[in-house]
Amino acid sequence: MRSEVIQKLSDIVGKDNIYTSLEDLYCYTYDASFVKADLKKDLAGVAVYPGNTEEVAQILKLANRERIPVVPRGAGSNVSGGSISVGDCIILVLKRMNKILELDPKNLIAVVESGVITSQLQSEVERLGLFYPPDPASQAFSTMGGNVAECAGGPRGVKYGVTRDYVIGLEVVLPSGEVMNTGGRTIKNVTGYDMTKLFTGSEGTLCVITKIIVKLIPLPEAKSTMMAVFSEIEQACETVSEIIAVGLVPCALELLDNIYIRNIEEYAKVGLPTDAGAVLLIEVDGDAEILGKQIGKIEQICRRLGAVQIRVAKTKEEAEELWRARRSAFAAVSRVKPTIIGEDATVPRSSIPVAVRRIQEIAAKYNIIIAILGHAGDGNLHATILTDEMNLEEMARVEKAIDEIFIATVELGGSLSGEHGIGRAKSKFITLQIGDVGLEVQHQIKKALDPNNILNPGVMFGA
Amino acid sequence: MRSEVIQKLSDIVGKDNIYTSLEDLYCYTYDASFVKADLKKDLAGVAVYPGNTEEVAQILKLANRERIPVVPRGAGSNVSGGSISVGDCIILVLKRMNKILELDPKNLIAVVESGVITSQLQSEVERLGLFYPPDPASQAFSTMGGNVAECAGGPRGVKYGVTRDYVIGLEVVLPSGEVMNTGGRTIKNVTGYDMTKLFTGSEGTLCVITKIIVKLIPLPEAKSTMMAVFSEIEQACETVSEIIAVGLVPCALELLDNIYIRNIEEYAKVGLPTDAGAVLLIEVDGDAEILGKQIGKIEQICRRLGAVQIRVAKTKEEAEELWRARRSAFAAVSRVKPTIIGEDATVPRSSIPVAVRRIQEIAAKYNIIIAILGHAGDGNLHATILTDEMNLEEMARVEKAIDEIFIATVELGGSLSGEHGIGRAKSKFITLQIGDVGLEVQHQIKKALDPNNILNPGVMFGA
Repeated sequence: MRSEVIQKLSDIVGKDNIYTSLEDLYCYTYDASFVKADLKKDLAGVAVYPGNTEEVAQILKLANRERIPVVPRGAGSNVSGGSISVGDCIILVLKRMNKILELDPKNLIAVVESGVITSQLQSEVERLGLFYPPDPASQAFSTMGGNVAECAGGPRGVKYGVTRDYVIGLEVVLPSGEVMNTGGRTIKNVTGYDMTKLFTGSEGTLCVITKIIVKLIPLPEAKSTMMAVFSEIEQACETVSEIIAVGLVPCALELLDNIYIRNIEEYAKVGLPTDAGAVLLIEVDGDAEILGKQIGKIEQICRRLGAVQIRVAKTKEEAEELWRARRSAFAAVSRVKPTIIGEDATVPRSSIPVAVRRIQEIAAKYNIIIAILGHAGDGNLHATILTDEMNLEEMARVEKAIDEIFIATVELGGSLSGEHGIGRAKSKFITLQIGDVGLEVQHQIKKALDPNNILNPGVMFGA
Repeated sequence: MRSEVIQKLSDIVGKDNIYTSLEDLYCYTYDASFVKADLKKDLAGVAVYPGNTEEVAQILKLANRERIPVVPRGAGSNVSGGSISVGDCIILVLKRMNKILELDPKNLIAVVESGVITSQLQSEVERLGLFYPPDPASQAFSTMGGNVAECAGGPRGVKYGVTRDYVIGLEVVLPSGEVMNTGGRTIKNVTGYDMTKLFTGSEGTLCVITKIIVKLIPLPEAKSTMMAVFSEIEQACETVSEIIAVGLVPCALELLDNIYIRNIEEYAKVGLPTDAGAVLLIEVDGDAEILGKQIGKIEQICRRLGAVQIRVAKTKEEAEELWRARRSAFAAVSRVKPTIIGEDATVPRSSIPVAVRRIQEIAAKYNIIIAILGHAGDGNLHATILTDEMNLEEMARVEKAIDEIFIATVELGGSLSGEHGIGRAKSKFITLQIGDVGLEVQHQIKKALDPNNILNPGVMFGA
């Protein structure tokens, strides 16, 4: 990057908030996905940490004038390669903008800067008896800005929806450097196009998010957790469909396959039968009076569809123990192979049994290991490919397998990504789902808002 | 309209589905708003009733080529002048496309053509124990396509949100005549920009909606209805805030002021005390076991904040009787004056008391009658102006009063429209809320998708 640009950026954010050394810039060549920027070709020119919206605006004005790519970044926990450097770019890190600006129980809203950590917002609102449901696995370190940019989901999606269902207003900086407010503080708001939802999930390609207004809901009074063990994964899948079909909506409905079960048991010793085909972790929440009835109904369905073991947590500690199995899942399989590729293809709930079978067939065909874990309640399966990126021959088979998973997903009426985003990882597949007309329209929108293509170029649509 | 164009349109939809006579075209110069097209200048050239997506596509291709404005229209129940003719245009009525294509309880979704009547979908899904919550007052005759185009709301918005919260996929025809599918059948879906939400509430300016995929939820087991009477409207407003602030979320929380109360009582004889300052109609729903507790808590709050009378419905019939008061509201005030202008400015819930006071002050200042009724639970006040459009001197005062209501709404952090849309009625106010930058960005999007400005020109942004 030209030194005069770096000097100007330094003037904007202050010399303590700008990084240009090689060892610093290396950090932005990767995020939590398996996509990595080319260290020679794609190293960033500079990383800046603005402290407020005005600084973000000045940075974008400069970048737009000079046609320098800008990659917005929160905690870098993105799992689709959406926040990594692309050539001689500016990495714009929002982490210093980390203030919770308002907690407003009267209006059931919170206003935060985009660098606020999601779980921090959650604990603050829970202290007031309120609830911000979206719970991506990264919630302890990912930022609200990143969650909004990716439209993050999580286990609670099955009952409570995802980030887009809670964002009702934004302050963003456009590529031109202009500041724009969208939406507002009311649930009902139909003044103009819904820019808030357009920007939610736009993966840093249309604007830089600086402030977020989210709606909150009352914190459910109580919850109840159970685990059901099945000999065959098909039985677990049918159970998921049946629970939904009878009108029960648990706040989590998580599926673990045998590969996960065996590895979790080896790693965390939570007492899972290692010969089980699948385990369902189920949680219901709401008024204390009705949880027992709900758990009872779910238990009946599980037994009817062949559960060989059911554990209902009697205490908070027991519930925590059941969740420990789920939480240690990624760590557990990370021991098997050095490279873990977590896909998040999502299918209509009733297609889960077929989708699981197709994934297993694809794994067999290409002789690779694919473990399945997922937010089965909303069809969001995480097919986890356990591989080794150093083994190029195997990686070639992995890539073919991933292609086939995506094709199967779309054939089943599903989505390439439920909650991870398209990023750089899946951009080549996007027309598979949205079609040529869909892509063209999205291109037009990108072009209208970012005519110089400075914001996160290559993300979502490819080069 | 040129006869060759009419001939081509007739070839597309068939001669039984095209209307060109003066008396037919007059019908499209108005909708349910007070906006009326100029009978000389703005009479449509033709109205067509296509029977399927392919016909819609052909119509738009023709219109785009010939640069003829197209006004999409459902039942014409729009309350912001969003579906009326504009010059020598094509009125594109979607009412023949009225099939419920799929009811899928396993995946909790329904797929409908855009001409399906909202309440028809609702009764069909309720027979399966499912629920499509959005309940605009027009639900018995308005179409799903219209509801999506306007992002319709209703009393249940306070608990269940609005149309946008249920639309997860669309089939639309773009101004070019190309057919595009957005979203899909999964709740979690982050592949590309959220075009579904961008099109929801776009008021027929970006595309013509032909199919809609909505998510459904389980039908609540039971509901309980009560009415609380207050001497002063401020007490009722405070009660609304307090109910929300303690974490109770009724499925309806409706406010009627003294003007409404007196007129409803005169008209419908439901036993309201005509000297009351305000009445709250409150409904909770959910599992039968917990409704009593919830109603009890709400009753306590009402009493504490000064309710002079509380009626809790003991039977379905009693609940129906309480709702009869609310439902007869518009009919009741329609007897007072010939012209009823229903605004739907929406403020953050905690600002309801101030907003009500401001509206009353504005009414006094301009010496006009403004009755207040509203979905108070979500801040969506319907300030109802009772006037006479033949009285030009009074109408001038009415217009000034409306201006002031909008200014006050935005000052209070609210929205010009909660659920009615901007249409032609409020387009001149749009920058008040979204600002010049916001307007410019929305213009860019409109231009990108509809470069020849053929779709509903003048709606939302003005001429």
